[in-house]
Formats: sequence, C-alpha cells, structure tokens
Amino acid sequence: MATRKKRITKKATKKAVQKAKPSKAATAAKMKDADKRTLTHLTTLADRVVKVAKAAKDPHLDIPQRSLGNVKYNKTKRFIEMGSGTNRRELFNLSQAKSYMQTLLVANGSKKLIDEGKTTSIRGLYYLLKHSIEGTKEETFDDQADCDPIIEDVEVTVNALREELHLYAQKKGDMVGEISLTDSGDRIDCARMGSGGYGIPSIVEPDVIQFDKCDADFVLHVEKDTVWQRFNEDKFWRTHKCILTHGGGQPPRGVRRMLHRLHNELNLPVYCLLDNDPWGYYIYSVIKQGSINLAYESQRMAIPDARFLGLRSKDYDRCELTPSVTINLNDNDVKRAKQIMNYPWFEKKKAWQKEIEGMLKNGFKLEVEALISKDISYVTEEYVPARLKEGDFLD
Amino acid sequence: MATRKKRITKKATKKAVQKAKPSKAATAAKMKDADKRTLTHLTTLADRVVKVAKAAKDPHLDIPQRSLGNVKYNKTKRFIEMGSGTNRRELFNLSQAKSYMQTLLVANGSKKLIDEGKTTSIRGLYYLLKHSIEGTKEETFDDQADCDPIIEDVEVTVNALREELHLYAQKKGDMVGEISLTDSGDRIDCARMGSGGYGIPSIVEPDVIQFDKCDADFVLHVEKDTVWQRFNEDKFWRTHKCILTHGGGQPPRGVRRMLHRLHNELNLPVYCLLDNDPWGYYIYSVIKQGSINLAYESQRMAIPDARFLGLRSKDYDRCELTPSVTINLNDNDVKRAKQIMNYPWFEKKKAWQKEIEGMLKNGFKLEVEALISKDISYVTEEYVPARLKEGDFLD
Repeated sequence: MATRKKRITKKATKKAVQKAKPSKAATAAKMKDADKRTLTHLTTLADRVVKVAKAAKDPHLDIPQRSLGNVKYNKTKRFIEMGSGTNRRELFNLSQAKSYMQTLLVANGSKKLIDEGKTTSIRGLYYLLKHSIEGTKEETFDDQADCDPIIEDVEVTVNALREELHLYAQKKGDMVGEISLTDSGDRIDCARMGSGGYGIPSIVEPDVIQFDKCDADFVLHVEKDTVWQRFNEDKFWRTHKCILTHGGGQPPRGVRRMLHRLHNELNLPVYCLLDNDPWGYYIYSVIKQGSINLAYESQRMAIPDARFLGLRSKDYDRCELTPSVTINLNDNDVKRAKQIMNYPWFEKKKAWQKEIEGMLKNGFKLEVEALISKDISYVTEEYVPARLKEGDFLD
Repeated sequence: MATRKKRITKKATKKAVQKAKPSKAATAAKMKDADKRTLTHLTTLADRVVKVAKAAKDPHLDIPQRSLGNVKYNKTKRFIEMGSGTNRRELFNLSQAKSYMQTLLVANGSKKLIDEGKTTSIRGLYYLLKHSIEGTKEETFDDQADCDPIIEDVEVTVNALREELHLYAQKKGDMVGEISLTDSGDRIDCARMGSGGYGIPSIVEPDVIQFDKCDADFVLHVEKDTVWQRFNEDKFWRTHKCILTHGGGQPPRGVRRMLHRLHNELNLPVYCLLDNDPWGYYIYSVIKQGSINLAYESQRMAIPDARFLGLRSKDYDRCELTPSVTINLNDNDVKRAKQIMNYPWFEKKKAWQKEIEGMLKNGFKLEVEALISKDISYVTEEYVPARLKEGDFLD
C-alpha cells in the first residue's frame, strides 16, 4: 500500500512541478507583483493616516491583537489562527504616541527596503530606524526588544509575512535530495551537494526560489544537524527518493516556509523524525499547527498534514533498547508534556494522548541518537524504512 | 600597494591550486592513508596495553595533560600549543580504572567507525559506547560530560584531530564565492549557490573535500549569518574576487578547519569582520591563535596570519556614527576586555592594546550591523572596500 501511495504522490508531484515551473519573465513579473502588493498595503496604511489628519480627526491605527486571547485553533483548517480582535493605537494618547510613531517608522523602513530591492535582518532594521528624535534625548527605539513586537504589529496590520517586508530571520538548516531548484538565478541540484548540503535561505519566497525538477516522493525532516549528517552520509535520500532537511533544533522560519512550499506546491508528504521528548513534540506542533506567538503566519507556514514518524514511546520495547540509552524525565519535562497533551490539536487525538501518556509512564525520554546503540546506521537502514513501509506514524 | 599584494597572492593561489588538485586515484589513496595513519596510532595504543599485560606489568596509559598549566603560547609558531606534560592513567588504581577503561572504549569506538567507513557525532559515539557493565549496575559513561573529555584524551594521545577519529561536531556556517571544490565526489561551484550558499560540513579533511579551481584573492569571514546574507545579496564576493564565510557566531570546528585549509593550501589571506566587543575579539583570538581548551588542535586549526578588519574602536568617529547605535559596556564586558588585553598574543602588540583601550575609553561596543544606520549596503560598498584599499587592519 505504501508503494501505491508513493506512486500516486509521484505523479501528483510531477504535475505540480510542471505547473510550478514559471518562465524567467513570469518570475520577474511575479517578484514585482509580490512586492507591489506589500507596497500597496504599506502605502494604504500611510494614506489612511494622512486622510484622517486632513479631516482634522485624531490619527489612529487598528492593530490586530496578537495576544493569546485572540488566538484559536481552527478545526476546519487544522491550524492555529488569529481572531478578529484589534487594538486601537492613537497618536494623541500619551501612552500610545510612541508605539504609534514606531509602527509608522517600521512600515516606512520596510517600504525603503522594498524600494531599494534589498533585505535585512530584524537587527538591521532596528539599526536602520534607531535615532534620537531631533531636539530631544528620546530614542525611537530603546533596544531590539522594543522593535520586535512592532515588526509583528506591522506584519499583521498589512497582512504580509516578515519575508515580504524584506526582513530575514536567522539562517540555519540544510537540504539535500532529489530536487533541483533555482535560487536567485543559480541552479542548485540538491542531489549533488556533497556532505555539506544546500544552506536553506531565510527567505524562500517564490520570487527568490523556484522549484525546477523534483524526483522526490516525500520530505524527511530531522531535528538535528548531526542526525541529518548520518542520513546524508548514508545517501538515504537517494535510496528512498526523498528530500532531506534539518532545522538545527526548532526550525527557523525559512526552513518551515520551505517545508510548506514543498508540501503544498509539490504535493510532497512531510515526515518528521524528532526526539521522543516534550521538545520533539513541540517542534512537531509548530511545524504542523503553527506557533502560538505568531499565529498569523500559520496560513503560510503550518503544515496540518505533517506526520510524526518517531521516535515513539513504544520504541524502547519495539527496538529492544537498553536502560543505558534512556534519559530520565525531570519535573519540567513532565509539566511540559502535560501542557502539550492539552493543546487543542492533541487533546482530541487518542493516538497522541496514548503517545504522551506512554512517555510519562516510561518515565524517560529517547533521543534519535539512542538508536545508534543498535548500529551506527540502524536509523537509516532499519528504523525509518520500517516506519515508512508500515505506514506507522502519528498524525 | 594593495593591488600589487593582490596580484602576488593571486599568482600564488593559482600555483597552489595546481599543486593541490589531486587525481581521483590519489584522492582514494590519500583517504586510505589518513585513515590508516589514525588506525595505526589507535592499534599501537592497544598493542602497548597488551604488551605490558603479557609482561605481567600493570597496564597504563600516558595521556598528555590538557590542563591550562600545560598550555603555552609559542612565539615562533604564533599559536597556543600544548607542553610535554603527561598524566599516567593506570588500570589497577581504583580512582583511575574507570577512566582507563573509558579511554580504551573510545579508542575502540573510533576504530569501529574507521573500519566501517562511517562518521558520527560525539553524541552518537556516546550512545554507541554507553552500556551497563555485565553483571553490574555500573554504566560505562554516566552522561555526555563523562565522555567528552575522554574523546579529547584520545585525540591528544593518538595525535589525531577529532575529525580523523571519524567524529563530527555541530554543523553551522555557510560559504559562497570564487571557488569550486569537490565534496564527496560532487562538484560544488560556490559562485553559483544562490542566496542559500554551500553549508560548510563539519568534516572538511582532504579525503572529503578537494579544492578544484580558485579565482579568489582572499577570504572574508564574517561573524554572523545575517551579515553574511547582506554580503551575499550584494554579491560582494564577485566584485572583490573573494570567498565569503560565516560561522554563526563562534565558528565551529569545520569552519575553522576550512579557513585553515583555504589559507594554507591556497595561500589566501583571511580577513575577519567581527563586532567591536570582547566577544568579537575572542572569536578573532580563537581563529588566529587557537582555543585555550583545545590547544592541541592549533597546529591544524589556528591561522596566525588572520587579520582583524573591523569593527574598530575608532569607527564611531571614522564612520561618523551616532550615539543611538552604540551599546554601553557592562561590567562583564569590561572584565573580559581586560582579560583579553593580557592574553600573551595581545599584550605585546601596541595596536591591539590601543584598540581595546579605545573600546574601554569609548565605554560602548559597536556591532557590525550598526553600520546599517549609514546605509543598508554601507558595510559592503564603503566600509570593507575602504579598509582593504587602505590595508588598515589589526594583526
């Protein structure tokens, strides 16, 4: 059955790639379009301020609420999303004047970046905008922590991903496998990337990266660079016709967005190989349902169909592991596990309840590397192939 | 003068590349040789134990001391190296029996990896070797912290880099620029790596990576991935014919070893663009003189001719920066700066003493990103080109 599924997926993949492959001219036009759309949103924001001011009314901005109270799990879409609550931010309000000004500063900084066709980090934007206000000792931003939430405010207000505001996040994570793509005009064949791999950029939007040819049947995402190295050294992606990624722990935005695009545009199932501990569960939760703090991104980051391939609480018995390779749960692990059990997307799933209960009952966690105690390549030659063949993973 | 220097370097580079380019057969033979050498060292270690045991003497190992007391700065070689002190580790000594056994376990694990032609992480080796000793509840290793120093002991005892024991470290850092290389049989053109770049592997020994063609005149190593992205987006490496690397903060072993090989085999000068703060100084110190904790690696990791291009304490005035972009030194910064001033490789250098005094006198630090306050591309279009042209860097 797994083979049949594979074949179907492959067909769908090829079709998707044909559709996804744009001409060079189309790419240029698309790039313009994406930036144009963001610019329109940004200038609309500014125009509204001018209009209100001209009408001699008090200028204000309505910013969607990013608080936990305005976040909910959408059962139909199967990801975390923001509600419709907004907060009004007024210029002529002593407690809001500064953040009002900061919001327009960030919007203006983003416009400047788009106009110049350049990108920068959130640290870079902070430095770009930081100055003392003329004639005063007041700083536009006191520190980075003062700037970051404003960036998020602008993201939600103009409904653009941070990447569309030309801001990049930390860059970590690598990729190899049966796909070739074009990155900024350069053709990258991920099947010929040696032991190092292709460093996943922090901005992977379609104007930067176009998928060219994909012979992969699925994506295997592993938690750590060290585990990724084992899979790459054993050329797992060649034997199993897949794409292999890692995100150096909790994957950064670029890696999540890359997985999202591979999944949605190329119809590739995404399997996650993570540790059997609360941190592994949490990484899976973010990949699958989105992050609670950044719920507004879910639509373009979350992968509700992602699957948890392992490690599983039953692996201690199933793989005949020894007590030597287990790590006892501490109080914090137990607390985190119970919190995660109560996440709305886990609490209704019997298999997940059983899984987390299993770990709590075991009283220990299992790292992916624990499988090395069986054999150096047990994970690539036995463990993952068996799970794929059986179709045994959590949803 | 700078131009002249460049030309000379380039000539030397081309020569070095011709020399460095080995045939496929030579590569295979070389690989075997490197592994053979390590294996010989490992088996000699074991043979010595057997010999002593057969002679009915007490088995022991003489392990070079890795303590600070056995580390000194070699003024001629210009890097930190280990002295000749050793510690004897005896099997029939209650307090040493366990670490004696652990040392042989690690040596044996490394032999197993080399025999199988596989590599693993230090975490992987730990799991490979961890088990309870038959008939007891005693574990071979209690935790990772129990295993790591033993790995270092084996490194110094058999005089092999960790990478030669087939162990890899964390993988971070990327590379782009005017060089193409072969990594595990795949040809990587670093001038065609898009926005993502080539992820620098954690093992970059000559049996894995061979340099093919180099048109670069120098290496620019920057501290952070975010700064690297700015340089790559502006294609600095194309305009200035160089190789661009970053190490995600303190560079991991793979990045340091890559810089070392680029410098020594291809005669490329290495310029470091780091923050004007004690952490930036320390990163430079490790790249240049080696790490105090791992002094035995210096010979194959340290780059005594590496140059500190910036940021400099005088940049606040030179670049006409504003108080807004400075970050006040805290007590810990001041303490660390004074420690670093007293490092033997800094204390005799007037320019470095002046540099660090300058920062202390300023009372603030400057991040590379602070230059963005001038212009998004000020660092790539003005700052670094001016320093290279003037030849103004610290040694």
